[in-house]
Amino acid sequence: MQNKVPVDTRKSPYAVLRGVEISDVQISGFLGGYLERAANVTLPSMYEMLEKTGRIDNLRFASGKKKGTFQGFRFNDTDVHKWAEAVSYLFATRKDVRLEKVLDTAIEEIRDAQDDDGYVDSYYPKDKRNERWTELGWSHEMYCAGHLIQAAVAHKRVTGNDSLFKIAKKFANHIDSLFGPNKRPELDGHPEVEMALVELYRETDDLRYLKLADYFVRARGRGYASSSKYPGITPEYFVDHKPFIELEELVGHAVRMLYLCCGAADVYLETGAKDLWQALERLWNDLVQKKMHITGGCGSRSEWEAFGKEYELPNKRAYTETCAAIASFMWNYRMFLATGDGKYVDTMEQVLYNGLLSGISLDGKHYFYDNPLENDGTHRRKEWFECACCPPNIARLITSLPGYMYSVSKDESKIFVNFYERNKANISTRFGNIKMIMETDYPWSEEVNIHFDKCEVTKEISICLRIPGWAEDFSIKLNGETINAKPKNGFIELKKAWGKGDSIDLFFSMPVEMIRSHPFVEENRGRAAVKRGPVVYCAEGVDNNFEVRALRLNHEKPDLHAEYGNITNLGKIVSISGKGFACDMDDWKGKLYVPMRKLKVDKPVEFKLVPYCLWANRDPKPMVVWIRLI
Amino acid sequence: MQNKVPVDTRKSPYAVLRGVEISDVQISGFLGGYLERAANVTLPSMYEMLEKTGRIDNLRFASGKKKGTFQGFRFNDTDVHKWAEAVSYLFATRKDVRLEKVLDTAIEEIRDAQDDDGYVDSYYPKDKRNERWTELGWSHEMYCAGHLIQAAVAHKRVTGNDSLFKIAKKFANHIDSLFGPNKRPELDGHPEVEMALVELYRETDDLRYLKLADYFVRARGRGYASSSKYPGITPEYFVDHKPFIELEELVGHAVRMLYLCCGAADVYLETGAKDLWQALERLWNDLVQKKMHITGGCGSRSEWEAFGKEYELPNKRAYTETCAAIASFMWNYRMFLATGDGKYVDTMEQVLYNGLLSGISLDGKHYFYDNPLENDGTHRRKEWFECACCPPNIARLITSLPGYMYSVSKDESKIFVNFYERNKANISTRFGNIKMIMETDYPWSEEVNIHFDKCEVTKEISICLRIPGWAEDFSIKLNGETINAKPKNGFIELKKAWGKGDSIDLFFSMPVEMIRSHPFVEENRGRAAVKRGPVVYCAEGVDNNFEVRALRLNHEKPDLHAEYGNITNLGKIVSISGKGFACDMDDWKGKLYVPMRKLKVDKPVEFKLVPYCLWANRDPKPMVVWIRLI
Repeated sequence: MQNKVPVDTRKSPYAVLRGVEISDVQISGFLGGYLERAANVTLPSMYEMLEKTGRIDNLRFASGKKKGTFQGFRFNDTDVHKWAEAVSYLFATRKDVRLEKVLDTAIEEIRDAQDDDGYVDSYYPKDKRNERWTELGWSHEMYCAGHLIQAAVAHKRVTGNDSLFKIAKKFANHIDSLFGPNKRPELDGHPEVEMALVELYRETDDLRYLKLADYFVRARGRGYASSSKYPGITPEYFVDHKPFIELEELVGHAVRMLYLCCGAADVYLETGAKDLWQALERLWNDLVQKKMHITGGCGSRSEWEAFGKEYELPNKRAYTETCAAIASFMWNYRMFLATGDGKYVDTMEQVLYNGLLSGISLDGKHYFYDNPLENDGTHRRKEWFECACCPPNIARLITSLPGYMYSVSKDESKIFVNFYERNKANISTRFGNIKMIMETDYPWSEEVNIHFDKCEVTKEISICLRIPGWAEDFSIKLNGETINAKPKNGFIELKKAWGKGDSIDLFFSMPVEMIRSHPFVEENRGRAAVKRGPVVYCAEGVDNNFEVRALRLNHEKPDLHAEYGNITNLGKIVSISGKGFACDMDDWKGKLYVPMRKLKVDKPVEFKLVPYCLWANRDPKPMVVWIRLI
Repeated sequence: MQNKVPVDTRKSPYAVLRGVEISDVQISGFLGGYLERAANVTLPSMYEMLEKTGRIDNLRFASGKKKGTFQGFRFNDTDVHKWAEAVSYLFATRKDVRLEKVLDTAIEEIRDAQDDDGYVDSYYPKDKRNERWTELGWSHEMYCAGHLIQAAVAHKRVTGNDSLFKIAKKFANHIDSLFGPNKRPELDGHPEVEMALVELYRETDDLRYLKLADYFVRARGRGYASSSKYPGITPEYFVDHKPFIELEELVGHAVRMLYLCCGAADVYLETGAKDLWQALERLWNDLVQKKMHITGGCGSRSEWEAFGKEYELPNKRAYTETCAAIASFMWNYRMFLATGDGKYVDTMEQVLYNGLLSGISLDGKHYFYDNPLENDGTHRRKEWFECACCPPNIARLITSLPGYMYSVSKDESKIFVNFYERNKANISTRFGNIKMIMETDYPWSEEVNIHFDKCEVTKEISICLRIPGWAEDFSIKLNGETINAKPKNGFIELKKAWGKGDSIDLFFSMPVEMIRSHPFVEENRGRAAVKRGPVVYCAEGVDNNFEVRALRLNHEKPDLHAEYGNITNLGKIVSISGKGFACDMDDWKGKLYVPMRKLKVDKPVEFKLVPYCLWANRDPKPMVVWIRLI
């Protein structure tokens, strides 16, 4: 049965939730804008980049349809795969004949580049057969296979067409024939194939793929990925220093580490392996208690794109790759599917509205690779990268967003409202369809109204409303009457035979908060960040006529107020203004250290803050998230 | 004429100062303690390490006196050379028959490892002749030669014995025969030989060495050091991205960069080349205005041991290698010799009393490689390192310290008092000897008394007293009478026919200062460091019964007071105590971000601060230099 979701847990024994189909939800709020731009700008312009930068040509070279040799990084095929996955999700919510045609052509290029045995990776075409699988630490061959599988599953689920799926399955079978217990022991240096294989298992019911995924997750930590071939690179980089179940903390290359967590969570959802779950919980606590920036970004260390030590959360040099934010979002989603615990959606929300969406510009075609929390104004989004993992990754995340808005309990008796975003939903359950219209200007507005349409349901169904962790003050009205209930695992459950005329009014108080970080985060000591609801704010030079990095917040009388209105080039958003202080930078000219008693008194200034995820969409100016308090 | 100095500018046309002989000054204060320990502990134990870790054996393998092959890093010979240089300087102030014997044996090992053509580097023994000079980017062959030359010059100057000098000169001649204009164009990846060659020129008057040094300084920036052989390493790392005279800022590997500055300054002292001087001044301003930690340490970035971008001065991850501090001290000294400007001695003092002496333990045989400004208590000094550049480097700096205490103007009419340290000096000038006894407990005491002994001088001589940049309030009395004068270039000049009974009383007010750093240093925003006189303080867990990283200084009523007294295992020093606040770490358990309004009020605490350079000499506990203000 076709199921337009990125993660299909309908049959997963250890999932308590399943996703809803992307096609069942039309988003049209703040997040909907990103989806709209993905359709109109991001995906068409991205294909142009794939052509322009030789990503498609590489496939043509491999098939022999064009003369030439592979160019760029050896994982460049994945840019095509991720774009194909993004386009597939898009088709769940809209028809696009032009993109359909382009996608079909791209799939043909992949098909033609496939070898008879199923192998397809344009870096290792037929005349390089002998080199395949010889250098798995760096080759990314399974990483590429994983992205191909994910794209193929998405394409089949959304379009019903199995053209790409057949290619991917053949490749997966080839891999399964070579690797696994009592076969070749090498592992890919870059985890990714694990979650893809589980998804392929979900799509095919073929246990081989699940077993292989389980093996790949568990076989790490014995040097199969990080051999002596890579001097100067630690096994931690490849997450190959310890078996997964022994990991005590997140280390090494952030995206590798987090994709592995996704794969392990997927394996858990199918097998219920307690040892995996214990490791996942340990690592998740490490993430949210010690290694996540307030923007939800993680992987703070720019050298080796790595997790830093605990509380190592620099701002200017924060690496916080867009792909790591996406990986964290994906991992948290799987943890949520396994538990139904809203704390994982809280983290997804923190990531999404801040360090994830910061990865793409409002024009829909410029991208951040790294997402620092402070900058002198020189860091700007780019059209493309030599290593272009982030642009198509954020595209596939955006086009699949509708599917994340709601979840359904495994017994189909509960619908979970995960995110608040203007949308129309028609969620089919075993007991009938629930039709809802959600009106809100979230994340700007504190109010959310859900109206129900005619629902032909055969029994009472629960609507579980997420109460975000940051929302200490909230209210819920059901058909005008206040509901007094405390959230359980982050949700409040309203059970009813829903029907036309029913409505839920939610109010989440969004005071402007000054946030402090743990004293061991040295960079933020004596500083505060400003947050309202799920949105982290920053001071950007373009809104302020003083040096924002010298801004001081008045910590005793924080005079901060939120305003909802249009800001040129940013659209209608909530900005925050207030009165603070700033030093005169001229006083510091040529000086690095000055006794406090000699410093002039800071001058009062009026400042404006804008959402961090929207910075660098206007003139290049300095930006700061963590603002000094004295 | 024998001249027991590390840098002999007596004949340098563009020097305004020359050093005094190490043998002419006996130091016995805080610095003297380090020298004493160097004689009794550091140098003997270091030779044991040289034997134990195969440094000496490498030479024996090369000469064939012992069977075996080279072990360790290819620059390991320099550990022997730097130790030999350190021991040589030591002999200027004391006789040590045992060390003399050991040094002579070590010199024999070097001699026996020398090839007929003069080449000596145990990594490339005779049977590896063909590999010599083939990979200069990484081989460190000239770097090794440079350290050999410096050791040889020191040995000859102090002992009059030319056994090592002959070896080094023969090697230098060999290098000169191969490299230079119209010869082989390659350059060593690690600058160091430049300053050694200038010193060899000073010792021999042989212009070839100066010309070669000038060439090596100027030839960089054309890819001769950083060829395509080193993928993944930027030319900046080798300081080979631009010609020296075009450098706008300090970049790349800090020690390489700073040794190159030393070499360029040495070439300037001999040639007066304005283009070199302009570059040196630019780079110096970049150092002190944008890239130097308050401890004087520099090279803030741990990846590639490099300079960070401007204002990139992290604390926990500060790399600030001991060798970089030493290199900065050496460079500033050359800038001082060229100008007589006290600002360079100010920097030397800032480096010496903080981030340089932190490199060695009070037991004299444990060393820091990197000198962070904040730590959780796990960073401890080690007995040795695989890459052991720092231990013998700090040893040679310490044993040469007496020579830095004073300088003499080129016309010999002025004696510059650079540092304040209890000492007896007998400084010979063309106009006779000046005999002084300096009594002080500097850097703890604010008072310095200089008594003159019988000086048989033929004319009035100026004593130029350095007024440290930090000393805003000071007084000078000459024979009891207050002198009202303003410092010129950091010095106050007292001219007199000095003789027995003359005395100078200096008072430098040392208030405890709270220091702030430039607003662009994100880590220190909202934080202050405590400094008294030249000494930077830190809060160390061993003195405080709360988490020092959570300490808050009261910025409005800083209640800080200094106390001079014995502290177990640190000796008689000035500690600083005060009243501040600290949060309860239990309140932060499991939390990374908390709204300010929910934070409990900090509890009042009494705290004690100790000199940064002395931290980690007691039980392993957290340490912090920059303390939060709110």
